[in-house]
Amino acid sequence: MSENTIQPPYLLFMGDAPDELAAKSARGVYEWRPELCVGQLCLEGCKAGVDLPNMTVAEAAAAGAKTFVLGVTNRGGVVSDEWRSILVDALDNGLDIVSGLHTRIDEIDVVREAAVRNGQTIHEVRHPHGPFNIATGKPRSGQRILAVGTDCSVGKMYTMLALEKSMKARGLDAKFRATGQTGIMIDGGGVPVDAVVADFIAGVVEDLAPAADDSHWDCIEGQGSLFHPSYAGVSLGLMHGAQPTALIMCHEPTRTHMRGLPHQSLPSIDDCIKTNLAAARVVSPDVVMAGISVNTKDMSEDAAQKLLADLAQTHALPCVDPGRNNIEPIVDALVSG
Amino acid sequence: MSENTIQPPYLLFMGDAPDELAAKSARGVYEWRPELCVGQLCLEGCKAGVDLPNMTVAEAAAAGAKTFVLGVTNRGGVVSDEWRSILVDALDNGLDIVSGLHTRIDEIDVVREAAVRNGQTIHEVRHPHGPFNIATGKPRSGQRILAVGTDCSVGKMYTMLALEKSMKARGLDAKFRATGQTGIMIDGGGVPVDAVVADFIAGVVEDLAPAADDSHWDCIEGQGSLFHPSYAGVSLGLMHGAQPTALIMCHEPTRTHMRGLPHQSLPSIDDCIKTNLAAARVVSPDVVMAGISVNTKDMSEDAAQKLLADLAQTHALPCVDPGRNNIEPIVDALVSG
Repeated sequence: MSENTIQPPYLLFMGDAPDELAAKSARGVYEWRPELCVGQLCLEGCKAGVDLPNMTVAEAAAAGAKTFVLGVTNRGGVVSDEWRSILVDALDNGLDIVSGLHTRIDEIDVVREAAVRNGQTIHEVRHPHGPFNIATGKPRSGQRILAVGTDCSVGKMYTMLALEKSMKARGLDAKFRATGQTGIMIDGGGVPVDAVVADFIAGVVEDLAPAADDSHWDCIEGQGSLFHPSYAGVSLGLMHGAQPTALIMCHEPTRTHMRGLPHQSLPSIDDCIKTNLAAARVVSPDVVMAGISVNTKDMSEDAAQKLLADLAQTHALPCVDPGRNNIEPIVDALVSG
Repeated sequence: MSENTIQPPYLLFMGDAPDELAAKSARGVYEWRPELCVGQLCLEGCKAGVDLPNMTVAEAAAAGAKTFVLGVTNRGGVVSDEWRSILVDALDNGLDIVSGLHTRIDEIDVVREAAVRNGQTIHEVRHPHGPFNIATGKPRSGQRILAVGTDCSVGKMYTMLALEKSMKARGLDAKFRATGQTGIMIDGGGVPVDAVVADFIAGVVEDLAPAADDSHWDCIEGQGSLFHPSYAGVSLGLMHGAQPTALIMCHEPTRTHMRGLPHQSLPSIDDCIKTNLAAARVVSPDVVMAGISVNTKDMSEDAAQKLLADLAQTHALPCVDPGRNNIEPIVDALVSG
């Protein structure tokens, strides 16, 4: 179903992260899957960290760790000698490695040789490997919820992880489906959709979220936005591959322009809802918009609650911030749907 | 600007094509660029051919050919020993090779070695090589016409080649921009958009059709359809990268379902026009629909003319079949702006 199957538990490598953001993938794994993490490894000068004991690779292996999670950016894109010897050490201690770097670590001779020598696996979560299939768009059973957005980086992954968590707490058969590297590290599986060859965007998502019982809920991480000129092709292919039964519109209200593009204005939420529903109907005629998920972390509590109430009224949809309160109103709408 | 720059004149290799369709790329080169072709090479049993003298590789080289055009499919996806020795012979005779095969011929040892030995280039037009850029969507000058479609394989390439030809005949500064392998072979440059990594779909098209004088017309080959579930992501990325000032809607009226997908119904022309204009406005607010190009080859002359007249009236747009009459009404609409 998905090309990465990462074995827990994990040792989270924080490297020499200059700030928390540099280690956001490792932090995401801890935030959403703390029960799978046995420790962290911070190097001298590291400014990131989570509430886990510091461990050497050998200590983590002794504590049962099966995978070394490289969820931190490397300064200047270079894998230093210090990092190389830690990676080799991890493999020599019987750990697999999952890497979210742009640089392929399996192209570093000493690292690849250590993996072969020890029979360990290196998961390069930014580098998908086929063969992949061309999408068919053939109708399939099961419930598939897809996060879409007014822009990139507005909380689509967070929303779908929160949705999965809430649905599981209700005893529903729910599964998060990761389409980006942080999501893949968190879930232990998935496909980095923006890194596959263009012809296969929709096909990899069909395979990632296959036909299922109608009582099964796939919570599919979206990417980009149909209104972001750099990535909209990825968003549309992902949409058609997902064949969603419901969408959740994700939004960040403090943006003044599309992310990274000062000249590019934002769509209205209304336009964005209509355009996404129309695109989804190509493969899923009965698709519905289940709610709006707003990332209000840069707003006061009062301002956030007022905004959520206003948006709920304007769009006649449940409107929540899963980071602030809870996602239950959207889950209610989905299950009663 | 584009990654393939193929040197004319050409020897067209027809191989052992079982029918005309198998050699459609080679035939396209002859149809649109006859002045660049010196001869063809047909093997025993070949059922395809154009109105060019048959030549050996050595005869073609003596006649001035610079590039061997492998624009025919290989039976069973296998490059036979006979083909291998012909490819080596071409390189040994000082010809470059342009290949449209799925199989990379530069991964065949004897072929790669012959290219290196002779200092010749192998263009693998289905296999793009970066580095590519992420699109910015930044407004740029120049006129860019993009062919879009109700479906795949409805005449988008043909329409844009006809448009370029007509515009050039009027003394306009027009340039066809190829986005698929046959178009690349015909034009000698371009990028196979569906074969680049998803993140770069729009970016490669921005680079393919860069800012230009406002009197310059880029005629950009489209791919797929926003309504084709297998490929719509490619179509939307291509659209945003093209930043079109005008669109031409291409249509094939005898289809009963989306190409290759019996379960998938066709969009109406009206829906398709509205959806494509809305998608284009994300990067090009003033974009217009310049006309409809209909492939009526499977209809009688009377039925075709009636359909074209009806569509022109229904949609209040110039409506032509460039393969049957001419594309002038659309050119008139474009230049009168």
